Amino acid sequence: MSKNKYSNIRKAAYEANMQLPKLGLVLFTFGNVSAADRDLGVFAIKPSGVPYKDLAEEDMVIVDFDGQVVKGKLHPSSDTLTHAVLYRHWENIGGIVHTHSTYATAWAQTHRDIPNYGTTHADHLTADVPCAPPMSDEMIQGDYEYQTGFQIINCLKEKGYSYEEVEMILVGNHAPFTWGKTADKAVYNSAVLETVAQMAYLTEQIRPGNPRLKDALVKKHFERKHGPNSYYGQ
Amino acid sequence: MSKNKYSNIRKAAYEANMQLPKLGLVLFTFGNVSAADRDLGVFAIKPSGVPYKDLAEEDMVIVDFDGQVVKGKLHPSSDTLTHAVLYRHWENIGGIVHTHSTYATAWAQTHRDIPNYGTTHADHLTADVPCAPPMSDEMIQGDYEYQTGFQIINCLKEKGYSYEEVEMILVGNHAPFTWGKTADKAVYNSAVLETVAQMAYLTEQIRPGNPRLKDALVKKHFERKHGPNSYYGQ
Amino acid sequence: MSKNKYSNIRKAAYEANMQLPKLGLVLFTFGNVSAADRDLGVFAIKPSGVPYKDLAEEDMVIVDFDGQVVKGKLHPSSDTLTHAVLYRHWENIGGIVHTHSTYATAWAQTHRDIPNYGTTHADHLTADVPCAPPMSDEMIQGDYEYQTGFQIINCLKEKGYSYEEVEMILVGNHAPFTWGKTADKAVYNSAVLETVAQMAYLTEQIRPGNPRLKDALVKKHFERKHGPNSYYGQ
Amino acid sequence: MSKNKYSNIRKAAYEANMQLPKLGLVLFTFGNVSAADRDLGVFAIKPSGVPYKDLAEEDMVIVDFDGQVVKGKLHPSSDTLTHAVLYRHWENIGGIVHTHSTYATAWAQTHRDIPNYGTTHADHLTADVPCAPPMSDEMIQGDYEYQTGFQIINCLKEKGYSYEEVEMILVGNHAPFTWGKTADKAVYNSAVLETVAQMAYLTEQIRPGNPRLKDALVKKHFERKHGPNSYYGQ
Repeated sequence: MSKNKYSNIRKAAYEANMQLPKLGLVLFTFGNVSAADRDLGVFAIKPSGVPYKDLAEEDMVIVDFDGQVVKGKLHPSSDTLTHAVLYRHWENIGGIVHTHSTYATAWAQTHRDIPNYGTTHADHLTADVPCAPPMSDEMIQGDYEYQTGFQIINCLKEKGYSYEEVEMILVGNHAPFTWGKTADKAVYNSAVLETVAQMAYLTEQIRPGNPRLKDALVKKHFERKHGPNSYYGQ
Repeated sequence: MSKNKYSNIRKAAYEANMQLPKLGLVLFTFGNVSAADRDLGVFAIKPSGVPYKDLAEEDMVIVDFDGQVVKGKLHPSSDTLTHAVLYRHWENIGGIVHTHSTYATAWAQTHRDIPNYGTTHADHLTADVPCAPPMSDEMIQGDYEYQTGFQIINCLKEKGYSYEEVEMILVGNHAPFTWGKTADKAVYNSAVLETVAQMAYLTEQIRPGNPRLKDALVKKHFERKHGPNSYYGQ
Repeated sequence: MSKNKYSNIRKAAYEANMQLPKLGLVLFTFGNVSAADRDLGVFAIKPSGVPYKDLAEEDMVIVDFDGQVVKGKLHPSSDTLTHAVLYRHWENIGGIVHTHSTYATAWAQTHRDIPNYGTTHADHLTADVPCAPPMSDEMIQGDYEYQTGFQIINCLKEKGYSYEEVEMILVGNHAPFTWGKTADKAVYNSAVLETVAQMAYLTEQIRPGNPRLKDALVKKHFERKHGPNSYYGQ
Repeated sequence: MSKNKYSNIRKAAYEANMQLPKLGLVLFTFGNVSAADRDLGVFAIKPSGVPYKDLAEEDMVIVDFDGQVVKGKLHPSSDTLTHAVLYRHWENIGGIVHTHSTYATAWAQTHRDIPNYGTTHADHLTADVPCAPPMSDEMIQGDYEYQTGFQIINCLKEKGYSYEEVEMILVGNHAPFTWGKTADKAVYNSAVLETVAQMAYLTEQIRPGNPRLKDALVKKHFERKHGPNSYYGQ
C-alpha cells in the first residue's frame, strides 16, 4: 500500500474498525470508526456498507471537517457528517465510534439515560450516560447526519457536561456514539458502554427502583483513573 | 463434484446454510436455507435432518415450485413445501431461510408482532415484524407445511405489506421465516431479525410501555438504505 | 489403550462427555454422561471431579446397574447411583446426561414445569418438561443419589408419562437429567432442553401469562419427528 | 526469565490472571489475581492497567502483606491494598481474585445478597453470597482500597461466616472478590460465583418470590463436596 501523509490515520482507523467485530460490538456493517489528524484537518473513516471481513486499510476514506471527501475511491460511511461535526466542534478528540451494540442500543430505544449504579460506570464517567432526545421532524427530514452531530453536542451542553469528561452518548431511538483522544480510546469507550448498559439493565431487573451510586464513591472511582491524583495504570 | 445446470444454486444454498451455525442462528439441524433458479423453475434446499457439520454441497436437493424433487439422493427439508409455495407466489425472491433462532422464536411463541423501536429495525423495514397467527386445526391436520406458506402470504396480504418491503415474518407458536433476492440476503435478514428481536425484548424490559419510533425517523432510516434516494453502501 | 469388551461404551461415554463443554452445557466438572451396554448389564460413566480438559477415554469407569464399580481406577461420578437406578428400571435407554446448564437449572430452582410454548418444544415432547419436587428430608439424608433416581421415576409415573416419550426432567432445586437410546441422543436432549428453557423464559418475559401451544400443533410437530407417520430426517 | 524465590507465585499469579479472560470474567483490564507465599510473607499480583494480551509472567509485582512493593518494575494493581489486608488477616488463604464479571457485579450494584436457590450454589457454600454494604464517606475518602479489605472482613464477621467456608463476597456498588487456598481455587470461585449469580437472576425472573433451597438439601450438597464425609472427586 502506498505510503502518504494519511497513512497513520488510515492505519489507526482500519485497526480500530477491525476491533469492533472482535469485541462483539457489531453485526455485519452496523458500525464505523474514524481517526482524525488535527494538523491536516482531516479524518479517516470506514467506507459505507463494506463488511468487516472484506475491509482493507486502503479502503479508508479521507474526509475533511466539513465532510468533504479528500481522498479515497469508496463512499465514506453514511454517518460521516456526524463525525465531521463532532471533530469540527470538539477540538481535543482524535477518534469517534458509532455502533449498534445490543444493550446500549436497547437503552437508546427507551430514551433513558443509563443511571450510574456502580464503580464499573464511575471508573469512566461521573454522570449518567446521557441519551439525546430524537430530533424534530424538520431536522430529520433535513440534513439528518449533520443534525445528529448537533443533537449530540447540544445534549451535552444542556446537561452541562464536558465532552472530555463524558465520552459517550446514546442518540434516542438510534444507537450509541463514543469518542476519545484516539480511535483506540473511542473503541474502548464503546466496549465499556456496552458493559455498563448490560449491568444497568440487570441491576434494574434484580432490584426495581435501585438507587444510584453515592457521590463519595462516584468521585473516588473517577479520580482513581482520571485527573491529577489518579493512581491507576503505569 | 459433477458440474451441472444446478451447480450454482446448490453452491448458493450450501454456502448460505453453512452461514447459519456461524451466525449462531441454529442448534443442530433446526434450520434450512434454499436458493432458487427462476429460469429453471427450481430451488436447491438442505436435506432433512442432516447436521451442518456433515453437510456437503452435493447433498442439496433440487425441488420444483410444486415441491416435487427434481434431483438429489436425500429427502429434502420437511419444510420444503413452505418454500415451494413462497417461490410460486412471490416471483421476485431468490432465497428463503427458516431458523429457530432464540429471540425471534420467543417472540413467535407470544404471537406478538415485534414493534419498531429503533433505527436498527427501521434500517430494514418500516413495519413492525409481523407475526402470522397459528393456523386453524383443519389446516394443521391437513397439508401442514403447504398451509404454512399460505399462512405467511395471507398474513402479509391482510396487513397490506409487500413481500419486497417486508422480508421477514414470525409464524405464531413456531419460528421465523425470512427471504430476499438471494439466499445470502435471506440469511442476512435472519441475522437482522434475531438482533432486532433481542433489542426489542430488552427495550421492553428496560422501559415497559415503550413507544414506537416516530414516523419521520422510520421513513428517514428506511430510505437511507432503500429506494431511489438511498445513499448507504457503495 | 487396551481393547476389551467395554471399549465401545467407554468410547461412547467419553465422546458424549466431551460434547458437553463444546455445547456450552457445563462449567468445569458440573456434568456427567454415561453410556450403557444392555447385554453386559453395565454402563461407562465419567469419573468424579475430573476437568473435561484432562479427561481420557480410559478414565471412564465401568459400573453395574446396582452402582458397583466393575472396572476402572478412578471413582465414578458422585451421581452414579442415579444413573444406575434409571438404567435398572428403564430397560430401553442407553445413555443418561446430567448437567447444570444455566436456563434449565434456573427453571429447576423454581420447581416449575417448563410450559410447552412452541414447536421447538413440541418437536421433542408433547408434555411440559416436568420438574420433580425436591425430596423429603429423610430421602435427602439417606441414600441421596439413589433416591434421586426414584424421585425421577416416580415423577414421570405420577404424571402418566412414558420415559420413551419424555426424555428429560428437571429435579427441583437441583438441575436437569436427560436420557435416550444412546449417550449421543441424551446429549442432544440436554442441548434441546437448554434451548427450550431459554425460549420459555424469554416468552414469559415478553408476554406474561402466555398461553401454551394448542393441541393440534403439539400433535402435528411431535408426529412429524416421531412415530409411524414421521417424515423428518433421512 | 530469571529464576528466583518468587518464581512460583509469579507463575501462579500469571497463569491465574490469564484464566480470567478465557473464562469470560473480565473486559480489558477489569480484574486482578494474586498468589501468596506464606513463608516469604509476600504475594505476586497483576500490574495496574496492563491488558491481558500484553501481560508477561515477569510483569507480576511482588508485594508484602502491608502492601509495600518488594520486587517488580511496574506499579501493582490499584486494588493491591485490599489483597494485602485479606492476606494479613486470613492466614489460610493463598489466592485472591477481583473481577467485574457481569452478573455478580449487577447483584453487587443492588446491595443484595445472592439467595441460595439451588444445589449449584449449595455445592460451594451454605450461605447466601454476602454483599458488604458500601463504606461510609469517611472510609471512601480515606485509604479506600485498604478500607475495602476491612469492609470485606467485617461483613463476614458480622454475618458469622468463616472465610474458609464462604470464599466469595460482593462489595456493594462495586464488584465481587473471591479467595481460596490457591490462586487457581480463587479463580474457580469467581467463575462459580458468576454462574450462581446468573442462575439466581433468572430464577427470580421466572418465579418472583422464589423460596430458598431447603436446609436438608443445602447441608447434603455442601457435605458431598466438603468436610470429613465428602465423596466428590478423586
